Amino acid sequence: MVKTFIQSASNARVKEIRKLRDRKNAKSSPLFYMEGSRIVGEAIACGDVIETLVVAPELIRNDFARGLIADAQRANIEIWELSAPAFESVSIKDHPQGIAALGRKRTYEFSDLNADGGIFLALNAVADPGNLGTIIRTADAVDCRGIILIGDSANPYDPNAVRASMGAIFSGKIVKSSYDEFLIWRNRYDIKLIGTSDSAEKDYLEIEIPNPVIIMMGSEREGLTERQLTDCDDVARIPMLRSSDSLNLAVATGVMIYQAYNMQRGYRLRK
Amino acid sequence: MVKTFIQSASNARVKEIRKLRDRKNAKSSPLFYMEGSRIVGEAIACGDVIETLVVAPELIRNDFARGLIADAQRANIEIWELSAPAFESVSIKDHPQGIAALGRKRTYEFSDLNADGGIFLALNAVADPGNLGTIIRTADAVDCRGIILIGDSANPYDPNAVRASMGAIFSGKIVKSSYDEFLIWRNRYDIKLIGTSDSAEKDYLEIEIPNPVIIMMGSEREGLTERQLTDCDDVARIPMLRSSDSLNLAVATGVMIYQAYNMQRGYRLRK
Repeated sequence: MVKTFIQSASNARVKEIRKLRDRKNAKSSPLFYMEGSRIVGEAIACGDVIETLVVAPELIRNDFARGLIADAQRANIEIWELSAPAFESVSIKDHPQGIAALGRKRTYEFSDLNADGGIFLALNAVADPGNLGTIIRTADAVDCRGIILIGDSANPYDPNAVRASMGAIFSGKIVKSSYDEFLIWRNRYDIKLIGTSDSAEKDYLEIEIPNPVIIMMGSEREGLTERQLTDCDDVARIPMLRSSDSLNLAVATGVMIYQAYNMQRGYRLRK
Repeated sequence: MVKTFIQSASNARVKEIRKLRDRKNAKSSPLFYMEGSRIVGEAIACGDVIETLVVAPELIRNDFARGLIADAQRANIEIWELSAPAFESVSIKDHPQGIAALGRKRTYEFSDLNADGGIFLALNAVADPGNLGTIIRTADAVDCRGIILIGDSANPYDPNAVRASMGAIFSGKIVKSSYDEFLIWRNRYDIKLIGTSDSAEKDYLEIEIPNPVIIMMGSEREGLTERQLTDCDDVARIPMLRSSDSLNLAVATGVMIYQAYNMQRGYRLRK
């Protein structure tokens, strides 16, 4: 285990971390930045995620974070010990708590997905990293077998997405794909594709959800494209009253994938 | 209709707006700050919300925002026209679009709630304004008759809450209350109180949800207190697989209140 002490905010390694703030760099880098004891703790517990632990002992105020440093040392994880000013220069928090990490991204292909059963989630061009992380967290709770990010998606390793995922990013199988590639995979395994739209005729409770199934959700602003809606075997509408014309994407996705999960665990509708 | 031109970021009115950034001031002020053409448009459409429209014509890039200024003029709303630097000094956005507003908060008491029917939502010490706004948006979609904020709650008029509510904040009946006051109201009308906990025995689908009903959700970190759980007529568990031990609060609330809404519109899921 190597411990490196870094005093200056202009140190080359510190600069490398700061570069990950740029959205383009964050997308293309094989590494991602996470900050805060809770998410770092999840990453250490998962094993095989953290490349480097980044700490500023002067800023650390709680024993949980100190315990994490000891855990990382036992796990032979490399540690960079930064001065408070150096840490503050990389921090994305208003009140840095002195613990962060660089993780290695995991990439999955369609061939990594087992299409035999379960719920798959396809997201078309989701824009907001916080929404995406929250969706990854919910998908984990229903044992989602794969999340397909179609088109120009937010980066699931954006620090806000990682934080919102509460660690589910470390175990979820996330595949980036064009819509055409996605369709080829779905057609090969003939998995029922259910989309959502607020102008769909069928109430989401009236749709038979088989096993396996793909639930496809549109982007925050545009929803699904006309072509995507046409390709769906069924399109579900989540009913809304009063002046509402849409739900938050993470909430709508939660309602839909819990309905899929409920059907797959044997619940059926009675009116 | 009065139009006031303000050049300097140190103008007294501009300072008043900036003061609303401070959480304490934002909570105690009868006014709240909102920014962006979408939310300002919702507020103008609602009528009787906006006290002052705050614009920076130099920064405005889209016709929708220009149309809103015309709408506000027709509605006799006072307009402050700021220089770009003055607007940037109050803006909460990275790329200000030049349109914002000061709104008048609405306050409701328990006596404003009609306890005859529908869904009520009680939130114990919700901490995150974005979660709160998202919940207010979802509650609107199921025609929630009242949202009770118990204890030390995030400010529903925090700019992030207002934005996440997508305008639902302007029509929702939100009551701030201590837990004891809330219990007195609930006992007076004898409304069934359903809480949630990840260690509850009953699956949320197995709980009979009557009309009216109160769904009570705990804070992000602590959930409901022991006392609150004891006071509930039923406590529901949203099942979670894999390593998940909780859902995002806005997602969990969405799943619960859609279940209540589905039951109230006559749907039952049975095994």
